Amino acid sequence: MSLTVVGSIAFDSVKTPFGERDRMLGGSAVHFSLAASYFGEVHVVGPVGDDFGESELSVLTEHGIDTTDVERVEGGDTFFWRGHYDYDLNTAHTDDTQLNVFGDFEPKLSEGSRSAEMLFLANIQPDLQRQVRAQCEGARYAALDSMNLWIDTARDSLLAAIGEVDCTIINDAEIRELTGEPNLARAAAKVMEIGPRAVIAKQGEYGAALFTESGFFALPGYPLEDVRDPTGAGDSFAGGFLGYLDGEGGDLDDATLRRAMGYGTVLASFNVEEFGTERVARLTREEIDERFEALRAMTQFEVPADLP
Amino acid sequence: MSLTVVGSIAFDSVKTPFGERDRMLGGSAVHFSLAASYFGEVHVVGPVGDDFGESELSVLTEHGIDTTDVERVEGGDTFFWRGHYDYDLNTAHTDDTQLNVFGDFEPKLSEGSRSAEMLFLANIQPDLQRQVRAQCEGARYAALDSMNLWIDTARDSLLAAIGEVDCTIINDAEIRELTGEPNLARAAAKVMEIGPRAVIAKQGEYGAALFTESGFFALPGYPLEDVRDPTGAGDSFAGGFLGYLDGEGGDLDDATLRRAMGYGTVLASFNVEEFGTERVARLTREEIDERFEALRAMTQFEVPADLP
Repeated sequence: MSLTVVGSIAFDSVKTPFGERDRMLGGSAVHFSLAASYFGEVHVVGPVGDDFGESELSVLTEHGIDTTDVERVEGGDTFFWRGHYDYDLNTAHTDDTQLNVFGDFEPKLSEGSRSAEMLFLANIQPDLQRQVRAQCEGARYAALDSMNLWIDTARDSLLAAIGEVDCTIINDAEIRELTGEPNLARAAAKVMEIGPRAVIAKQGEYGAALFTESGFFALPGYPLEDVRDPTGAGDSFAGGFLGYLDGEGGDLDDATLRRAMGYGTVLASFNVEEFGTERVARLTREEIDERFEALRAMTQFEVPADLP
Repeated sequence: MSLTVVGSIAFDSVKTPFGERDRMLGGSAVHFSLAASYFGEVHVVGPVGDDFGESELSVLTEHGIDTTDVERVEGGDTFFWRGHYDYDLNTAHTDDTQLNVFGDFEPKLSEGSRSAEMLFLANIQPDLQRQVRAQCEGARYAALDSMNLWIDTARDSLLAAIGEVDCTIINDAEIRELTGEPNLARAAAKVMEIGPRAVIAKQGEYGAALFTESGFFALPGYPLEDVRDPTGAGDSFAGGFLGYLDGEGGDLDDATLRRAMGYGTVLASFNVEEFGTERVARLTREEIDERFEALRAMTQFEVPADLP
């Protein structure tokens, strides 16, 4: 089994009340692929510039991630984002975005990336998402992320892209904005009418909710006393979620999707404990499974003995 | 076993995007006691004015609630609140508050109310909460709710009141404000240092989280496609939570507290489906247990078979 992700590979400069970092490795495809790498084979697709060195690339290759489709654009600069968070770590404040090589990105997938069984279209322009979806015809399960920028500026393309995937993973505020429906359950139902069999509403520190045809499932965020940098948490969630699904193979029934929600929650929680990719890059599968079991212990309860 | 609640008995005028009601029965003690009435004996303590009629009182007495300590103040008017909600139903906008008979309220508990085993101090001035706590010396479990108004204007009294209860049930933003700690897990730990063995963070549509010495538990809000009026949801949560605990007797161990969180979540969900007390007033215990089981089915997941 294998998993392809297309998205941004970036340098991020981030300041939070708990510290700051300048030009650290980031980007949606990076956070996703590191999280997913603990479950199986991952192919990453995205452009970088001359400023992207071997030390950055090796963070990926050391995790066994296939970087064949990390396209180096000569004379170009890597995507750059600068942002900060105040004590409300749910809200990112963007101070600077430089698209750089991402501005002219035309995804061209190698055979290895094209033949993956699962596909994640990270938050990029929806027409690019559709191009990649079309190249990965054989993927039996595809998911996408998006954001308010594309809802505002490329709504029709985004709706078409959503219609071509099995699962939509976006922030709950964006599900409401996309559908014009303030009630989350109704909004998720409207997204499913477009095509996806599953909708995941990411809710920041409150966790995530899964809507499928057969019902509803939700998990709280894993409680942490130290949250240093939430950048990339949503992509690490998606990486844990799809990575686990890819590792499972077979039927993606509701019980499997629920466990995948658990792994997504766990990877997101490791992501936010340190800056950028610092924590997720040095995880072990044992640490992941331990926290998965801890999360399960925190969310289970029994029916009263006297209930009929 | 029995349960006493002190709090407001009110007329509420509420407008939401889904309708409006004028001077309907409301108030924290009313929402709480109706929710708790499905589990056992409830005594309600609070003042009303001449405008509070038999039809209002009978909503309580028809649920078997003891209204001996509903104190009628001659020549006075009942507490009145007018508010509205926009599509973000998590935020109440207050348009008018008339304390009326509540302004001079001095709780005097009858023997029945004083001898209850459990006590809920709904969101009222913390010195009043302490007076009632002192009168209910024998209560083996006491909980309180509060709000930002008392954090701002009666902080020392509130801290003293919190120090005298076993469980604090407040909105998560208020736990952060009270402790000056933006991280919820740390904030809850700080509240427990004041005295309570348990802290419940109410999170609106995102559900509620329970912090105890032995750990963390959280439940999402029950997903509803129709939410009409969130007024009283927090008090219905507390009524379901403490009502279930009271019905259990015995040790209030973590497993029991978790089930109580489930019943709180269920009662809050019924509360918001219609205006004011309309839905909770005509519930059956069977409907409550059915939704409890549905909630459990929505939140459980299994460890993967291949996990060591």
